[in-house]
Amino acid sequence: MQQQLAILGPGLLGGSIALAARARGGFGVSLWARRPEAVAEVERLQIADRATSDLRAAVADASLIVLCVPVGAMPALAAQIVEVMPVDAIVTDVGSVKGTVCAELAAIFRDRGRFVGSHPMAGSDQTGIAFARADLFAGAAAIVTPRADSDPAALAQVAAFWELLGARVLQVAPAEHDRIVALISHLPHLLAAVLVETVASEDPAAFDFCGPGFRDTTRVAGGPPAMWAEILRTNSTAVRAATEALIEKLRGIATLLDRDRPMTEFLTQAKTQRDRLRLPKTPHA
Amino acid sequence: MQQQLAILGPGLLGGSIALAARARGGFGVSLWARRPEAVAEVERLQIADRATSDLRAAVADASLIVLCVPVGAMPALAAQIVEVMPVDAIVTDVGSVKGTVCAELAAIFRDRGRFVGSHPMAGSDQTGIAFARADLFAGAAAIVTPRADSDPAALAQVAAFWELLGARVLQVAPAEHDRIVALISHLPHLLAAVLVETVASEDPAAFDFCGPGFRDTTRVAGGPPAMWAEILRTNSTAVRAATEALIEKLRGIATLLDRDRPMTEFLTQAKTQRDRLRLPKTPHA
Repeated sequence: MQQQLAILGPGLLGGSIALAARARGGFGVSLWARRPEAVAEVERLQIADRATSDLRAAVADASLIVLCVPVGAMPALAAQIVEVMPVDAIVTDVGSVKGTVCAELAAIFRDRGRFVGSHPMAGSDQTGIAFARADLFAGAAAIVTPRADSDPAALAQVAAFWELLGARVLQVAPAEHDRIVALISHLPHLLAAVLVETVASEDPAAFDFCGPGFRDTTRVAGGPPAMWAEILRTNSTAVRAATEALIEKLRGIATLLDRDRPMTEFLTQAKTQRDRLRLPKTPHA
Repeated sequence: MQQQLAILGPGLLGGSIALAARARGGFGVSLWARRPEAVAEVERLQIADRATSDLRAAVADASLIVLCVPVGAMPALAAQIVEVMPVDAIVTDVGSVKGTVCAELAAIFRDRGRFVGSHPMAGSDQTGIAFARADLFAGAAAIVTPRADSDPAALAQVAAFWELLGARVLQVAPAEHDRIVALISHLPHLLAAVLVETVASEDPAAFDFCGPGFRDTTRVAGGPPAMWAEILRTNSTAVRAATEALIEKLRGIATLLDRDRPMTEFLTQAKTQRDRLRLPKTPHA
């Protein structure tokens, strides 16, 4: 039997989930967008079976609902759908911060629906549905973040859904998720922006000399500013701790700049760790 | 008339220069490697017209010689070739640090040969001749670094050579070069390694959760450690200054983590600068 999937939010992730689910088969996909122009674009790109700006129509028959809007917009959206969706619908999301957001959403879906948070590590600086692709999640980590009160069957189904889209699923509690992504995503984002702005302050003419190293090191700084400011604020405690840890490490390493052997050892350690990473092979950008 | 090009050093850059020059036509290309296995690989990959471990044979008829060995090995190699190369040969290099190195090389080639330093911004963490490609320099910045005593005709020919390979040429003095690349290459390299090691110290299990952002932000940390330790040491003063500037900026920005509007403004500035960069479109890694 076909499963009814409702995706709320027509961005890179929402569009890619729609494409991946349809490529996999077995889903009827509704994609909701607030703006009529976004609905028209979804229709034009033929990304979903049904595109609509009518929230009730999008979720009325859904067995799985995926919230793909910025984290700050999720509670209000959740409050709108909770009364009009099927009482046993499973709800997940793709938000980059989990602690407070999962608590708010779990409260909203306490009596209707079963909520389990998700965070697929598959974003890009190329946002927008035009960059959506069916293989965005292939080989990517999809983090699912159950709370103590999460429904085990819903957790299993959300995990199975990400696996179906090609992701490898990792499971951690929301607070643990936030500490981890502060290190591997939020701090790197902040650093990329700070690196760009350091060059801008010290010598803007230097930008003209940049090579592929600078391009890749700063790629994420091309991401949407308002969305990232919200992510950083929502996870500010963990990001601040990660930033302090990095500054301390950087200060220590800077004392080795004149010493070939300890610096080689340090860079060898870093290279060994980096070479070991399980990362999607093809750059998305 | 065919120009005789001698490339000394069989790495990614040396091999790519050979491939690019041959693709362009008009060059007879000799590639020198110290190790017989490297000579055999150049022959197997058919990258040059002549592969040899005989330095004298490589440079005897060269009109243009390109030093493609690590910066620390350049003065000794230069001292070996200066007596056996044509007296009017033009010599350049691909080293990542220019101040002290250009001074040493200019002294060695004062009476024989005409030296002008170069630095093509086209490296990769994928080192080795197996990754060499004819289009490595397409759209890349090639920095030429004449000194006050450099021969103007040699400077023009070195610049024309890089343009022939598809690069856009930028010209600055050696000390200025070192200050610039400290900001856009050496600091980013150090940061990438420090970011990896910060995660390793704080929570090595977090590596398993990484997405494409972490992959790209840390890509350069996969580069050869000994070569990079040497680069960082040779340019340590400028790298230290760039590191201090970044830490100061990072500390300032960390105070904005809880404030959406100023953080959005900061990230918007960074994105605007980043989006403006003239960078090679295709990632090399």
